[in-house]
Amino acid sequence: MEDLIIKLREFAEERDWNQFHSPKNLAMALSVEVAEIVEHFQWLTEEQSCKISSEMLVRIKDEIGDVLIYLIRLADKLGIDPIKAAAEKIEKNKSKYPANLVRGKSKKYSEY
Amino acid sequence: MEDLIIKLREFAEERDWNQFHSPKNLAMALSVEVAEIVEHFQWLTEEQSCKISSEMLVRIKDEIGDVLIYLIRLADKLGIDPIKAAAEKIEKNKSKYPANLVRGKSKKYSEY
Amino acid sequence: MEDLIIKLREFAEERDWNQFHSPKNLAMALSVEVAEIVEHFQWLTEEQSCKISSEMLVRIKDEIGDVLIYLIRLADKLGIDPIKAAAEKIEKNKSKYPANLVRGKSKKYSEY
Amino acid sequence: MEDLIIKLREFAEERDWNQFHSPKNLAMALSVEVAEIVEHFQWLTEEQSCKISSEMLVRIKDEIGDVLIYLIRLADKLGIDPIKAAAEKIEKNKSKYPANLVRGKSKKYSEY
Repeated sequence: MEDLIIKLREFAEERDWNQFHSPKNLAMALSVEVAEIVEHFQWLTEEQSCKISSEMLVRIKDEIGDVLIYLIRLADKLGIDPIKAAAEKIEKNKSKYPANLVRGKSKKYSEY
Repeated sequence: MEDLIIKLREFAEERDWNQFHSPKNLAMALSVEVAEIVEHFQWLTEEQSCKISSEMLVRIKDEIGDVLIYLIRLADKLGIDPIKAAAEKIEKNKSKYPANLVRGKSKKYSEY
Repeated sequence: MEDLIIKLREFAEERDWNQFHSPKNLAMALSVEVAEIVEHFQWLTEEQSCKISSEMLVRIKDEIGDVLIYLIRLADKLGIDPIKAAAEKIEKNKSKYPANLVRGKSKKYSEY
Repeated sequence: MEDLIIKLREFAEERDWNQFHSPKNLAMALSVEVAEIVEHFQWLTEEQSCKISSEMLVRIKDEIGDVLIYLIRLADKLGIDPIKAAAEKIEKNKSKYPANLVRGKSKKYSEY
């Protein structure tokens, strides 16, 4: 991760692209890249989405790479450590959704 | 990262939530979490987005955590290593956008 | 539709919100509102999404209203007639996806 | 609008695409189309987004058409009238954001 952060800083500097990389713009770019993942799954059934062809996986891997790239850039510009942010959020989620209360039927998932 | 992957597997298993975690659904959840980041920036100028208050940063950190969580889950379900995917995508982008050709004015950014 | 366009202009003027309503910002707001629709469906099966409770429908109706509001605002700021844009796009799609070629199995939907 | 609803029903029927048009899938498709709008604006300043070239406007018009198409389809599948939903939401927003309280500086926009 640390390595990616540094590579992405260099990548932007070499291209003089920091002028475009405001957090606002990076958040937009992040949403665009995520939509490219969603696009692959939009007409598939859930079942089909579990057995993606290897050809399609190669493309989705690229999109996942792009999402992580912009997420890292955004976090870097804001001085946030994404790994630490995720680790702390998992702990919060553990309290928010106690396993014994939400097992297989959490309100979050079953209120419909 | 490896640690997060394992923790997230356990988190889903303990709650019997794997039934909800098809790649299709995880892609949707990812897009919803990204929108929660975008929401913070939608009415800010780019300049304002560069000097976010510490109060707001705490909230955005949580959203960044959520995005990474769903990205890791999606990648894990598809057998993709997100760090490797990003590293390889950076190399592709280096070829696609040669520094000497796109410096400060890449077609990508300046075709408008 | 014409009536909505005018009401939304007045709404923004009365609040001095035109300063926030650049096309860039309106596009972001549009994406945030769409995610609020997606959020309702993310953990549902396709089948469940076809029989939404009346309680949930009321909430989704509000989100659909919000999406149309921002779409109209964005189109208005750009001088685009959304109804005409959709009508013309349908004609394009008819040529792009000829019924006899794509029936039930369009490449678009079945390339996975 | 009524005319578009009917044309879109026919379009889906002629192609036997109703099988793909669950509300869940249509919500995903809607988010993908919105991202295609966002993509045009992601690297522009707000000011640049206010003076889009006529060439670019043609493309954005198509994307706005696509967004309205999927919004209409989704609303139709759910039995929701999108024009009515927007009109009612505007009334709600008028109460929620009283002009005299939020003028030019609503909490919504200025809490950062």
